[in-house]
Amino acid sequence: MPGPVQSIERAAAILRLLAASSGRLGVGELAGSLGLARGTVHGILRTLVRVGFVEQDEASGKYRLGAALLHLGTSYLDVNELRSRAINWADALAARSGEAVRIGTLLDGKILVVHHVFRPDDSLQAMDIGTLLPPHASALGKALLAHDANAAASIRGTELESYCRRTITDHRALARALTRVREQGWAAEIEEIALGEASIAAPIRGYGGLVVGAIGVSGAVERICDAGRVPDPALVGYVRDAARAVSRDLGASRW
Amino acid sequence: MPGPVQSIERAAAILRLLAASSGRLGVGELAGSLGLARGTVHGILRTLVRVGFVEQDEASGKYRLGAALLHLGTSYLDVNELRSRAINWADALAARSGEAVRIGTLLDGKILVVHHVFRPDDSLQAMDIGTLLPPHASALGKALLAHDANAAASIRGTELESYCRRTITDHRALARALTRVREQGWAAEIEEIALGEASIAAPIRGYGGLVVGAIGVSGAVERICDAGRVPDPALVGYVRDAARAVSRDLGASRW
Repeated sequence: MPGPVQSIERAAAILRLLAASSGRLGVGELAGSLGLARGTVHGILRTLVRVGFVEQDEASGKYRLGAALLHLGTSYLDVNELRSRAINWADALAARSGEAVRIGTLLDGKILVVHHVFRPDDSLQAMDIGTLLPPHASALGKALLAHDANAAASIRGTELESYCRRTITDHRALARALTRVREQGWAAEIEEIALGEASIAAPIRGYGGLVVGAIGVSGAVERICDAGRVPDPALVGYVRDAARAVSRDLGASRW
Repeated sequence: MPGPVQSIERAAAILRLLAASSGRLGVGELAGSLGLARGTVHGILRTLVRVGFVEQDEASGKYRLGAALLHLGTSYLDVNELRSRAINWADALAARSGEAVRIGTLLDGKILVVHHVFRPDDSLQAMDIGTLLPPHASALGKALLAHDANAAASIRGTELESYCRRTITDHRALARALTRVREQGWAAEIEEIALGEASIAAPIRGYGGLVVGAIGVSGAVERICDAGRVPDPALVGYVRDAARAVSRDLGASRW
């Protein structure tokens, strides 16, 4: 059945384009990006509107993502075993470290945040669940790249985007950094994605020992690191303990 | 083009079933629920796996929602104008009232929570964004049902599920309650969805005065209501002020 399959793939491509555009797109823009006829794109859009995956702006006639996707997305969280097993350990890690905790998993060569515990103080913080982090510039990403061959393969040959002066943008330098991560069993990032920020992460293993995600803390560089800009050994210990605890709950053998 | 459109509708139906099942479903279960041949369902599932909307459990061979949906769902939040215009007002309402704030919009006859500000204390609270509230038993829902003819039409003839002794389960009683909501311009719910909990909400209007959502506070009944179990007039005022402020930002004329 090439027809039906192809139309679902095209629908998914339209949804991805709308997500990446952070706004609204017209039929012509979508048809141009996908190299499809306007009529084809219009038929798919009409169906996506009917099922609630896409909404049409009445004033401009342009299309944007629809509300039904939000419910499907959070329903995914409910059935995500990594997240459900890790929730209590993430709360404990935030309490123990005093820092924000994130859990990430691989999606299309990026790191999808599937859980986020706010830093336990009264400060205003934005919820990161569902956002994508760059794998080469985040501690969660480096922990995954170093321990998961699929993750490493997914960024091979891609451009490593620069966010700060310290972002690793050279594939050979990244390979050396990942070797260190593998040797020490945890990853860190110091002002590689945002000035003044640092993070520490360790891999989470599932049944059979396969790496299924990573857990880590992030916060102001002066809290995450000691005076010599080295990640605080106590925080590293807390993160590794949490990663081990989640892994055991997911059925990984002792390691 | 009936073929492609039909396959996208079937794919959406499979995703909805997986979301409602809160777990994993096999090809046979999905085929049975949809009244389709197993081969048809299998072809759609294979495509949904390839685009990341569905994942297959290796051990059981069953299917569940996939990680790509989480990213699409939170991308919807980024382009949702109601939410982006309301975020600052929601924070202010939580600070002023000392209670949790939720913003809801209509989706398939339910109330989709598109924004949630935790009660400003250090207690553990679960994020409600993406969950669906029953329209007849929540203050957000009653505010929408009373002011939006589409919302009211969407539940006509449906069964009003009971959650507590006080849940309104009779359509005529609900119609009388909604008349009061229209007259006073705000809605409340006291132990109608959960014992010990109460909530207050007011409708948000967009460009042209159309109701596009609702904003409200919820919390322990002894904080939301006064000694006579009447919603605290000060809280009602805060909620109505917030709804008016968001409506003005969305382009509603003064009302």
